[in-house]
Amino acid sequence: MSIFVAELIGTMLLVLLGNGVVAGVVLNKSKAQNSGWIVITFGWGFAVMLAAYMVGHYSGAYLNPALTIGFAVAGKLAWAQVGPMIAAQMIGAFLGAALVWLHYLPHWKETQSPADKLAVFSTGPAIRSPFSNFISEAIGTFVLVFVLLAFGAKGLVFADGLQTMAVAFLIVSIGMSLGGTTGYAINPARDLGPRIAHAILPIAGKGSSDWGYAWIPVLGPIVGAILAAVVYGAIL
Amino acid sequence: MSIFVAELIGTMLLVLLGNGVVAGVVLNKSKAQNSGWIVITFGWGFAVMLAAYMVGHYSGAYLNPALTIGFAVAGKLAWAQVGPMIAAQMIGAFLGAALVWLHYLPHWKETQSPADKLAVFSTGPAIRSPFSNFISEAIGTFVLVFVLLAFGAKGLVFADGLQTMAVAFLIVSIGMSLGGTTGYAINPARDLGPRIAHAILPIAGKGSSDWGYAWIPVLGPIVGAILAAVVYGAIL
Amino acid sequence: MSIFVAELIGTMLLVLLGNGVVAGVVLNKSKAQNSGWIVITFGWGFAVMLAAYMVGHYSGAYLNPALTIGFAVAGKLAWAQVGPMIAAQMIGAFLGAALVWLHYLPHWKETQSPADKLAVFSTGPAIRSPFSNFISEAIGTFVLVFVLLAFGAKGLVFADGLQTMAVAFLIVSIGMSLGGTTGYAINPARDLGPRIAHAILPIAGKGSSDWGYAWIPVLGPIVGAILAAVVYGAIL
Amino acid sequence: MSIFVAELIGTMLLVLLGNGVVAGVVLNKSKAQNSGWIVITFGWGFAVMLAAYMVGHYSGAYLNPALTIGFAVAGKLAWAQVGPMIAAQMIGAFLGAALVWLHYLPHWKETQSPADKLAVFSTGPAIRSPFSNFISEAIGTFVLVFVLLAFGAKGLVFADGLQTMAVAFLIVSIGMSLGGTTGYAINPARDLGPRIAHAILPIAGKGSSDWGYAWIPVLGPIVGAILAAVVYGAIL
Repeated sequence: MSIFVAELIGTMLLVLLGNGVVAGVVLNKSKAQNSGWIVITFGWGFAVMLAAYMVGHYSGAYLNPALTIGFAVAGKLAWAQVGPMIAAQMIGAFLGAALVWLHYLPHWKETQSPADKLAVFSTGPAIRSPFSNFISEAIGTFVLVFVLLAFGAKGLVFADGLQTMAVAFLIVSIGMSLGGTTGYAINPARDLGPRIAHAILPIAGKGSSDWGYAWIPVLGPIVGAILAAVVYGAIL
Repeated sequence: MSIFVAELIGTMLLVLLGNGVVAGVVLNKSKAQNSGWIVITFGWGFAVMLAAYMVGHYSGAYLNPALTIGFAVAGKLAWAQVGPMIAAQMIGAFLGAALVWLHYLPHWKETQSPADKLAVFSTGPAIRSPFSNFISEAIGTFVLVFVLLAFGAKGLVFADGLQTMAVAFLIVSIGMSLGGTTGYAINPARDLGPRIAHAILPIAGKGSSDWGYAWIPVLGPIVGAILAAVVYGAIL
Repeated sequence: MSIFVAELIGTMLLVLLGNGVVAGVVLNKSKAQNSGWIVITFGWGFAVMLAAYMVGHYSGAYLNPALTIGFAVAGKLAWAQVGPMIAAQMIGAFLGAALVWLHYLPHWKETQSPADKLAVFSTGPAIRSPFSNFISEAIGTFVLVFVLLAFGAKGLVFADGLQTMAVAFLIVSIGMSLGGTTGYAINPARDLGPRIAHAILPIAGKGSSDWGYAWIPVLGPIVGAILAAVVYGAIL
Repeated sequence: MSIFVAELIGTMLLVLLGNGVVAGVVLNKSKAQNSGWIVITFGWGFAVMLAAYMVGHYSGAYLNPALTIGFAVAGKLAWAQVGPMIAAQMIGAFLGAALVWLHYLPHWKETQSPADKLAVFSTGPAIRSPFSNFISEAIGTFVLVFVLLAFGAKGLVFADGLQTMAVAFLIVSIGMSLGGTTGYAINPARDLGPRIAHAILPIAGKGSSDWGYAWIPVLGPIVGAILAAVVYGAIL
């Protein structure tokens, strides 16, 4: 499996399961409706875990343009790979979101709120404040990249397969501790790919795709990832 | 322990614990009543984990006719084993459901809704739509088989005993992310065996066993599993 | 550390944390009040995990008279050790319950219901039915002992330290799936030791210690454990 | 990375994620609002896990003055390191709390209760009773240090990286089982550093920093840690 295919499939699985858990919790008549933040956060953590197990040994399972850029800044990934990887991640995220739409097909017209439907695809701020929302996304992604760089450091050794489980819990942790403000995109592909899908797909009773907010979960994570790489390099 | 006995005992334990957690959450006066989707999903994940630890080294712990067929299609299992394994799984699932009935004996007559009682045994759709329900079961099982095939690939190594824990979290993930539509049978034996038990057992105040729906959690998972094996083979 | 001291300290820690989580969820004004079955079940699972890590390499961390007897029946433990071990477990469970009383000292008089206070110490039936309650305790303990015997079988290998984590999830699973009926004592010491503590300690506004029920969480687990050892021996 | 820098960064990450999860659950309009004790306890557990993975191989990841003192008493840590470590932990905790303030910036003025705002920074008693609150903090920290000393004993071996996951579940367990009374500071830096931050930072609509209570989550944990080291030494 080529790196391109691996990143595409991995991100597709990530978004199918990740956005899928939001659909389960948010959409009307779902058996998981209103099961809360604990389900959202563990659901996203396990989504990352499974996608990483699936394609980790083919591409490293970056699945995230911000993480890809951060590791390139840190010198852990060749810059030539960054462009194709991000393209694959964007395509995968779009396709994963389309699968979520298909999987929950009868639930869209049963759900009243257009905002709830958008929330299945893309993140939005709890309190709209571009400055603070940007900082939140940057801090969340800083933690993600900073800890993942440490996971790859010489001093830290994991038994086979355990590191991916630790990554899952890292995602759960960021969601629980830092996700309350913006819904923790911390991944431009995870947010932008599904937002494009939301704009294109014939979702029953959908509303705006909120393009005015779309730059924040793209640029915030990228800035946070670059800062993490720089700070990590300065300390170690 | 023969493969037949292992699959029978494993599936019996799986259904005792898996359907047991639904009983705990759904039946009236249970101490676990209304404890929600987080308990259902972790309960099923740990049920799979324990059944797999129990019999994995005897039979591979398939415990699921769709998974069995998928692995046969992928060339990972001899076709001659498929028939006996499925028979064992069906018997085990029936017996497991009977144990759940026994374990929660005083709770059946305290529970009003016949639909809630059936839910302890078999899955049902959140929104009845044969086309979409079939697709949901197929997608859920596709993810199950696709990731399990990847777990067995050369590139992925687990420390002793850790793979079974990852399988548990895979089940939790499918439940959280894809279970809201049909209750994620993703296993014909897990659904049909208990449905037969529901039809036969003297459950206080029971209603219909909803045989009109019964084919979906049988055929949907099988189609999803075959597709996963074919796609996985095409990619790798 | 002698086996006696190890079992005593281990069971004391087990009951401090296990009964402690019930106190946290049940007692009035606790910050964990009404946090539900998910907290109860994970709380007990981690309690067992920590007690087992603490004393496992000294005594095997049985911490449970039914388990002790079951393993003796299965030939995995010398009968001469059974008596002293059970004595240590009973003393430890009593002391652990006393620590829970001390830890939550100001909460007893803030809690109205005597039944809630007893629930912190000992289990009680969701629906009082000696026959069914006995069977529930026997089934839960059967699963416990049956799976733990399998954990020790030659075919199943765990990376260092992982088995204890699997045991924790086994306890969580039994709680989630089978605990709704009687509160899953599945351990005579865990129930009887704290019941004696409840009877003796000066708990503000306490009621009956419900001695009429006390034999069920003692004999049910022992019968279930013996059956598990016999069935396991017959199969393997 | 020096021990000082490691303890500073580790404690900063610990408090960012740990106090962050309280902010998410408590602050108004947070997407995680009211998600309950299960999120608080797992959130803190994973916070400790990530901080320990991050800096464990540089400093041992003590991140807690009580733990530092306890291990010095037990002879596992040179007394000369205690002072600088505690200083680093205090600075890190202060900075972590400041990051939480920044991350949740728009939520402070949307939250009415000054007590809720303080709860994001520092612990407080469920029922104010200095004697009992002190004992609660001492018992919780006793368990922490006692089990961590056992984790380092010769008899207990963990696969690479697994011990840190067990530590995470230890923290979850203490939170679930013993946290209901005082909010389980069990760490003077985690409580005092953020309390100073609460006093200094321009938090919208903040109230008292409750300095009258501040000594309990400092001295209680230290006494509990010393007792654990002494008892552990006496037994083993």
